[in-house]
Formats: sequence, C-alpha cells, structure tokens
Amino acid sequence: MSTTQSFTAEDVQAMHEALAWADKAIGLSDPNPRVGCVLVGAGWRAGGHTQAAGEAHAEVMALRAARQAGHDPRGSTAYVTLEPCAHHGRTPPCCDALIDAGVARVVVALEDPFPQVAGKGLARLRQAGIDVRLGLLAAQARDINIGFLSRVQRGRPWVRMKIAASLDGRTALHNGESQWITGPEARADGHAWRKRAGAVLTGIGTVRDDDPRLDVRLVGTHRQPLRVIVDSRLEITPTARVLQPPGQALVYTTVAASRRHLDAIHAEVAPLPSTPDGKTDLAALLDDLATRGINELHVEAGHRLNGSLLRAGLVDELLVYLAPTLLGSGRDMAAFGPLERLADGLPFHFVDSAFVGTDLRLRLRRAGAAEF
Amino acid sequence: MSTTQSFTAEDVQAMHEALAWADKAIGLSDPNPRVGCVLVGAGWRAGGHTQAAGEAHAEVMALRAARQAGHDPRGSTAYVTLEPCAHHGRTPPCCDALIDAGVARVVVALEDPFPQVAGKGLARLRQAGIDVRLGLLAAQARDINIGFLSRVQRGRPWVRMKIAASLDGRTALHNGESQWITGPEARADGHAWRKRAGAVLTGIGTVRDDDPRLDVRLVGTHRQPLRVIVDSRLEITPTARVLQPPGQALVYTTVAASRRHLDAIHAEVAPLPSTPDGKTDLAALLDDLATRGINELHVEAGHRLNGSLLRAGLVDELLVYLAPTLLGSGRDMAAFGPLERLADGLPFHFVDSAFVGTDLRLRLRRAGAAEF
Repeated sequence: MSTTQSFTAEDVQAMHEALAWADKAIGLSDPNPRVGCVLVGAGWRAGGHTQAAGEAHAEVMALRAARQAGHDPRGSTAYVTLEPCAHHGRTPPCCDALIDAGVARVVVALEDPFPQVAGKGLARLRQAGIDVRLGLLAAQARDINIGFLSRVQRGRPWVRMKIAASLDGRTALHNGESQWITGPEARADGHAWRKRAGAVLTGIGTVRDDDPRLDVRLVGTHRQPLRVIVDSRLEITPTARVLQPPGQALVYTTVAASRRHLDAIHAEVAPLPSTPDGKTDLAALLDDLATRGINELHVEAGHRLNGSLLRAGLVDELLVYLAPTLLGSGRDMAAFGPLERLADGLPFHFVDSAFVGTDLRLRLRRAGAAEF
Repeated sequence: MSTTQSFTAEDVQAMHEALAWADKAIGLSDPNPRVGCVLVGAGWRAGGHTQAAGEAHAEVMALRAARQAGHDPRGSTAYVTLEPCAHHGRTPPCCDALIDAGVARVVVALEDPFPQVAGKGLARLRQAGIDVRLGLLAAQARDINIGFLSRVQRGRPWVRMKIAASLDGRTALHNGESQWITGPEARADGHAWRKRAGAVLTGIGTVRDDDPRLDVRLVGTHRQPLRVIVDSRLEITPTARVLQPPGQALVYTTVAASRRHLDAIHAEVAPLPSTPDGKTDLAALLDDLATRGINELHVEAGHRLNGSLLRAGLVDELLVYLAPTLLGSGRDMAAFGPLERLADGLPFHFVDSAFVGTDLRLRLRRAGAAEF
C-alpha cells in the first residue's frame, strides 16, 4: 500500500490527537492494540480509544462521544491510528460503524497486520465510497503498538529490558545493596514502562535477593501486568512478594512440581523446556507468553538472566536509567562474555535520551529488532 | 558586585557574539584566559579575541578590526566576556585602550579573579566616565574559562576525565582490545576537548598497553597540549609515541632518574612526592601543573589512575562517551571500592548530553566542583 499520499496540516494535527487518545489505552486494552480515533466535523471534534478487551473499540467510542455531545457524524473525517477492523471478533466490525454513521473520509496511520484485518478494513471502507488515506504518522502509530505488532507478526512479545545502574554500569554493590541507585522520579518513570507491558519478567535470583513486588504502584493503572518468574528448579517460596496480589503470577520451571508445592503458591506453574545444551529455553518462554496474549514483556532481572536473554538475541529494547554516580565495583548489568573481539559486542542503537529527575534515561534498540 | 543590572536584547545578542569570539581563543591563548570582545557602533560592529600569550588581548584586537574597517570606536559599546585588565602585564592595560579609544559603554560578562585585575579594571573604566555593566551571560563566560578560574582561584587545574566505554561501562575487553569502542565522530569530539586543555594526563600503564600519542590530530589547533605521564618508577621507553613530537612531554616520577635515561627520552622528568602512605601524590601533581600555567587538565588514563584521581576527589568533570553496545565483561572505567553503602558512591551531577555520531556524550560535574 502506497504511503505517498498528501495530507493537510489539519490532518497532521488531528492524527496527533488520535495518537494521544491511543496513549490512554495503555494499561487497559491489552492484549488488544492501543487505538485512538478522532472525528472532525464542521466546527466540532470528538475522540475515543480502545477499551478493555471485549468492550468498545476506539471508533465506536469516538462516534458515541460525538453523538453524546449532539453532533451528527455524517460527512465528518475520522482519524484512526490503526486500520479499522472488518471482522466480527468480540465486538462488531468498526468499519461498519463508520460506514453506518456516514463518515465521509477516513485517515489511517497504520495498516493492521492481524490476518483477519490486514487491508480488508481499508477495502471495505473504500467499497462504501469513503475517501480513505493511509500512512500519516505511521512510525508513531507503530511505536505505541510495537508489542501488539511483534506478537502478531513475529509470534513473540516485544522484549524491553529495564536496567538501573550507576554511570559505571553497576546495578548493585558487591554486598547486594541496590535500593536505590536511581532517584524517585526514575523509579516512577520505570513503573510507567511496567504499566505498558502485559507481563514483567524476572528470575528466581532476583526474587531471592531483593524480594521485589514488580507490580505497578507509582503510577495509576487499570490492570496489573502478569508477573513472570523464571525458576528452573522451582525454589520460590509461597511468601515471595511477587506472588501476592494485586495481579497474577506465573512461574516457569523445568522440573516437575509437587501437588503440595503447587497448592501452596498463589501462581500458575508452567513447564518450560530445556535447550539441547541443558539451558532454560527462553525462546520457548517468549513463544508461550505470546500465546497468552502478552504484547510487551518488561524484563527486570539480575545480571544472569539479563545475560542469557541478551546472549540469545531475545532483547529488542534496552531501557537504561543511569545515576550520576560512580560505584567502582559491584554487580554488572548483564553477565556474558568474555568476548575476544570488540566486533562481537551486542549491537544496539540509541533511540532517545531524557533526564528524569537527577538521572538519565536511555532507550536503545537492538539492530534490526523492529524489522518485522 | 551586584549583577542585577538590566540589559537590552541587543546587549544579549552582542555578548553571545563576544562569547563566540572567545571560543576562537581555544587552543591559542593558554595560559591566558579565552576572551572575546565585540564593539558595536552606529551601523557597524567589530570583534576580536585573545591571541597567544604575550600578544594582543581581545579588546585591542576588536579596536584594531574596527579601525581597519574604517570605523571610529568613539561612542561605541564594548562587550567583553572577561573584565578588561588594568595592569601592565606582557601587554599594556586593555582598560587604557578602551578609554583612549573613546568607548562610551562597556558591558562585561564576568569579573576577572586574577588578583592584579579583580575589579580594578571596572573601577578604572568608571573613573574615566564610561558606563560599565557587569554580569551578562556570566555563567557562559565562566564556563569557557573554568580552567583559568580554577588555576587562579584554587591553585590547581580544572580536571576533566575523558572515558570512552560501552553502555555497560567497559573501556576495553579483558584482552585489552579497546580500539575502537566509540566511533570516529566521538573520537574527533574527544580531540576537540583535548584541544581545550593545557595538558593531557595519562599513566604508564596506558602508555605500555595502548602506546597512545595523546596529541590533537582530528581537529585543527595552534598548539599541542603538554602530554603528562605519571610514571612512578620511570619505566617509560624512549620510543613511546607519547614522547614524540609534535608537542612537549612531561614525566612525573617518584624515583631518581639516571643521567643516561634522562638523555634518552625526549621529555622533561619532574619529581613527584609520595603521600605518607606511599602513594603517588596526585594533589601535588596538580599543584605543580598549576604553577606551569595549566588551566584545564584532560585525563585519558586507565582504570587504576582514574580510580586514584576519583578516590582522591580530584576529578571535577567527567566527559563520558557511551557506545550503544554491551560487552559483558572487561576493563572498568575506574578501579576503586568495594563500597559498603550506596551513599558512599562518588557524587556527580549531569551537565548535558548529546548524541555524537552513533554514540552518546555525557558531561557530569562533581558535586560542588565549580564552587570556587
């Protein structure tokens, strides 16, 4: 589909608004994509976003908002961040809602890769005589749903690894002290990224050392991400904080669990295969999480699990908070190597940087990670 | 001296131009400060900057430029980034030049702390009936001469430590390979910072491992910084590249050097005391460099010398280039610790960040470093 169509300044403005509506679906719509819709009529505009799974989509919410405000959607332009669906899923097709409402023009940021949609929505709108345009702010629309797109197109979640460290790359002192290297603003920002994720992943080592909760507390959310623990030998204790409400927990193990152990812990225990060389099969773990509808996976683990995921090339994005201090020696970000050549370093590229409180937040992506 | 005077938008614009002139004295005027001067007359403006030590100062250069362009400086306003000197040094007082030229108004960014100037220049201009204003863009004016101010006010150079590392804080692989972790743009940027410095400091370990030249090659310069090597046991070989032209080298040692050794190496060898606990006295090294007119000291050393300087609290600024890669294990930025409490981490604060090529450049300052 060509994206060389021309758009007006008004189109750009309205699509930015639609993207802002899509943001509001974070922490709400998973596993469905985050979609925003803005309707622009003569002298009025109305917007909406995807609700929780099974509830109304963005287009329907925007049409409702318009009608509730006394506006007639006939002849208006709809700006949608993702192609309207053409199939009956848990809700009726959004295409039909736009057609029935008499919308004259639909501007879409990004085609939906979901096999049951994939261009069919656009075709259906065109067949109904609607002027359809595609490709406005597509990169931004892709970014907000990078996890949904990853799951649908690659069959695995978008993996974002969060690391908080000193400037010299220390995530804890040799005695294990790590609370807190970064400041309160960085920690709250980290919770906002947790909120984006369908699941938060950690290892049994971190559960044992730090006993973290890994829930979303420092920012508001409609739902808690699934807490996932890699625990090959099923050593987790029932009192571990990561197993307590709010939210669900899922423990992956390579050993057979006793009935008694399973009854004691408040979590689903799922089997995880080993690779031929006896390691935990982390690729299989990602596959399984995708079948469970996890779009973005937020990793907050120690240097061992970090190293295993990185070595396996399974980390798509790094979210690194650097504190303006030097700690000299202590725990590393990720255990792998030693490498024999600099060229063997794990290649990422910087996406952006921002000061958060007194710390610095860096985002990097693995070379080629977003090419799917 | 009060800095609550008001300035016009034209004043701000002209002082920015004067600061840009001051920048041109980098790599030229040391040990003298980098000063820029802009003269604004009726329908004309002329500028200049400090030349090499013993040659003309900024005010004289600007007056010359005005006259050469056929403008009469009488009644003009002079914008100077540092208080004009009132004493006969290697050149006649700049105050007299401005007074003799009939300049009507002088706007000064920063008072000169040099004892023989320190307010005397401003007083002399006022006595001559000139309208004198102080404090416009003082922070910027201070920054460009942070090394000069440090030497004059603290009696030691401003110490800037440059580190190039992977995102996880590795400056080399375990086998010593370090060329190149960062890209060509970052390396050229690093040379621009070397150029600012009166001297570049390294340790005998780095000379032995990497045999660096440590001169300014990737950007143009009028002079080379002094290359300084901390070599307690005087182990440097005459063929070390850091001793070769262009530029001079200075080797600090705590042992007595043989005549034969001294004749062989193309460098001054200076004695360095030891501290009571038998360590190289790095504070004494800084004192000595200050007496030699070194304003900014650029450190490019290994983890041991870095650690010693940092532990001693002698590093004012960090200039860190982070490459978007993870190396897992290898050499650290600085060897110190282990610390027992996070609160014992060395406290810096971020000054700025910038992407340079594919790398990230960070500048940090030690808490309180600039308070002199």
